[in-house]
Amino acid sequence: MENGKKPRVVIIGAGFGGLTAAQTLRRAPVDVTIIDRTNYHLFQPLLYQVAIAGISPADIAAPIRSILSKQKNVTVLLAEAKGIDRDARKVQTTSGELAYDYLILAVGGQTSYFGHGEWEKNAPGLKNLDDAVEIRRRVLLAFERAERESDAERRRRLMTFVVVGGGPTGVEIAGAIAELAKWVLARDFRKIRPESTEIVLLEGGDRILPSFDPSLSASAERQLGELGVRVRTLAQVTGIDELGVHLGDEILPAGTVIWGAGVAAAPLTALLGTPVDRAGRVLVEPDLTLPGDPRVFAIGDMACFTHQTGKPLPGVSPVAMQMGRTAAMNIVRSIEQQPLLKFSYVDKGSMATIGRSRAIAEIGKLKLSGFAAWMAWLLVHIFFLIGFRNRAVVMFNWAWSYFTYQRGARLIR
Amino acid sequence: MENGKKPRVVIIGAGFGGLTAAQTLRRAPVDVTIIDRTNYHLFQPLLYQVAIAGISPADIAAPIRSILSKQKNVTVLLAEAKGIDRDARKVQTTSGELAYDYLILAVGGQTSYFGHGEWEKNAPGLKNLDDAVEIRRRVLLAFERAERESDAERRRRLMTFVVVGGGPTGVEIAGAIAELAKWVLARDFRKIRPESTEIVLLEGGDRILPSFDPSLSASAERQLGELGVRVRTLAQVTGIDELGVHLGDEILPAGTVIWGAGVAAAPLTALLGTPVDRAGRVLVEPDLTLPGDPRVFAIGDMACFTHQTGKPLPGVSPVAMQMGRTAAMNIVRSIEQQPLLKFSYVDKGSMATIGRSRAIAEIGKLKLSGFAAWMAWLLVHIFFLIGFRNRAVVMFNWAWSYFTYQRGARLIR
Repeated sequence: MENGKKPRVVIIGAGFGGLTAAQTLRRAPVDVTIIDRTNYHLFQPLLYQVAIAGISPADIAAPIRSILSKQKNVTVLLAEAKGIDRDARKVQTTSGELAYDYLILAVGGQTSYFGHGEWEKNAPGLKNLDDAVEIRRRVLLAFERAERESDAERRRRLMTFVVVGGGPTGVEIAGAIAELAKWVLARDFRKIRPESTEIVLLEGGDRILPSFDPSLSASAERQLGELGVRVRTLAQVTGIDELGVHLGDEILPAGTVIWGAGVAAAPLTALLGTPVDRAGRVLVEPDLTLPGDPRVFAIGDMACFTHQTGKPLPGVSPVAMQMGRTAAMNIVRSIEQQPLLKFSYVDKGSMATIGRSRAIAEIGKLKLSGFAAWMAWLLVHIFFLIGFRNRAVVMFNWAWSYFTYQRGARLIR
Repeated sequence: MENGKKPRVVIIGAGFGGLTAAQTLRRAPVDVTIIDRTNYHLFQPLLYQVAIAGISPADIAAPIRSILSKQKNVTVLLAEAKGIDRDARKVQTTSGELAYDYLILAVGGQTSYFGHGEWEKNAPGLKNLDDAVEIRRRVLLAFERAERESDAERRRRLMTFVVVGGGPTGVEIAGAIAELAKWVLARDFRKIRPESTEIVLLEGGDRILPSFDPSLSASAERQLGELGVRVRTLAQVTGIDELGVHLGDEILPAGTVIWGAGVAAAPLTALLGTPVDRAGRVLVEPDLTLPGDPRVFAIGDMACFTHQTGKPLPGVSPVAMQMGRTAAMNIVRSIEQQPLLKFSYVDKGSMATIGRSRAIAEIGKLKLSGFAAWMAWLLVHIFFLIGFRNRAVVMFNWAWSYFTYQRGARLIR
């Protein structure tokens, strides 16, 4: 911009939103720098598969440099944003300062314990690869410990798994643990019977998967029941410790608790000095800019966009990708001094998987459950996996475990 | 044994030796317990591929329980041996005591710095999956740091990799880093040129791969040279720190140093109260028992067997597997009160890989190098990978990276 140089666009975060924004700017007359704390783009919808040892971390993570290696106007930097000086138009990072003409914030979300950070130790969340590997370790270790435990009550506690939160993540994890225990681990142990594993899914509201049609929530609960997962709705968690989960006066003894309940915006949002909602998400204008700052855009899980339905849009990858596209297009329009576009989310449907041949899907007025929904889920997820190699490896692994009931990535590390 | 029960065989370690022993006892009238610190059997010959991001940890690790799930006389226990009471015939483990009638020790080896433990921090070795993931992290981070380094000298240091030790492991790592830099990373960076990476392989003796015929050592050095790896023989390392590698008064500046030089027996051997060699390996009788203790066998990398050639057998998987078979057969013969067999190693040849289409192999009098040796190496290694799934996934990954020069597992974690 200054000295006739190309405008500098800085994108913070290479998740679905940031990456789509960078790719949308492919032919734009700008210099793009995209920074991320990790060197890979994570295909988060399959993170639960890593957590239950279905696939390896590398199967759902593609190096950001590789994805963007042919796009000449992008520089990739492995760094973490530490602060933003919007007056000076500079981002402070762990590897120096970056000046910007336009800034896209796409830092995503993190697990939230609703003010109960002390629950984290006994109930890890599932937001990144480290979380997934930690949950995999805990789940597999619980069976190993149960195998050598002689006390019946303690063995039973070790073999009880509680998943907190009846959204898509909680449902996926609960169903996947049930399948891991019943099909995969069942033949490998001598003393314990993995098929007698207890899995409880806790939901605070009156039905699981509340963003879907009630008939699909009921179907999901039925399908989980067939796998042996007990669903408890209206369950208010009041504590989580070594003994298990506290629901008021009741204690649910559990050796492994997984937190799938709360998500909040990443801490960077608090440093922006702009209004946020209860979950810490930045309130954005209809064109995705921050209020009063037409050079800074916020997209994805860290943005609270209420202009379409009056309610915030859900924190799912299609929203982030569509926002990334609009933010990138608005930067080009701003350079060309055209009016900015208003963002509008096109909902192509949503789905949740429950297990082998089990899922629900809602696409406009179409409601699917069971095998048809699962096939739809499988195709969409494999199709969107970034990079052909991963797609083929994951498909191969799944076909393999589907037909043999084997699992590939059962490492305790 | 007592009370008419079946004799109890305890195997410590589920590497190539321990696993083969357990499988050899498949139909024997014994109760086998195999314990290991990890829940997986590691295909160690491909560990260097994890270290340079070619394949994922799970591709070379198969759950011990799965491998042995159909063998009804085996119990698998995730535990670490802490001590052995040979008078009382008991093994102390992290999960309680185990009584044995026969004991097979197969705990393997660990990296040795020849009394210079302080070198480890700046020069990790490569013996287990954690090592491999750590080396992968360092190698990939070195390029990321070089990309954002403005000082030319520091950038050059970051892009210099030194591998200490000209045995098969050192040769494999040096060749693999060269290929990673020149083919895989070359297109992904904007500022640095990964093809200008400097890789130095240091060997204390007068030629690399000294266990092979001199003509093959020369061929290997030539093949490494084609990849841009500089080989320095008669190089005596006197220190390793943040600056690089010290060779007497000379300092070789290096951002990343990898230790492929020394291996010693695992510390458990020191607790046995039986003679050991300089590398801490237990001296065994011709029938693989400990001197004076016909119920305890030691096999694989922790055993020093000199009765065949006068020199200790090499620490390679075929030796460990053949020893495992003999130890198991000797237990059966001892139960049947037959004389024990003397171990005799059948050398089927050895090979070392250098890179894509580059290797050396020595099979009896046959000497191969280049593409033919590499094909032989590939077939043998894929064939012996335990478990079909891994075999297929690894073959797929290799075919993919062979034809596309892409790498799959480039995660910095």
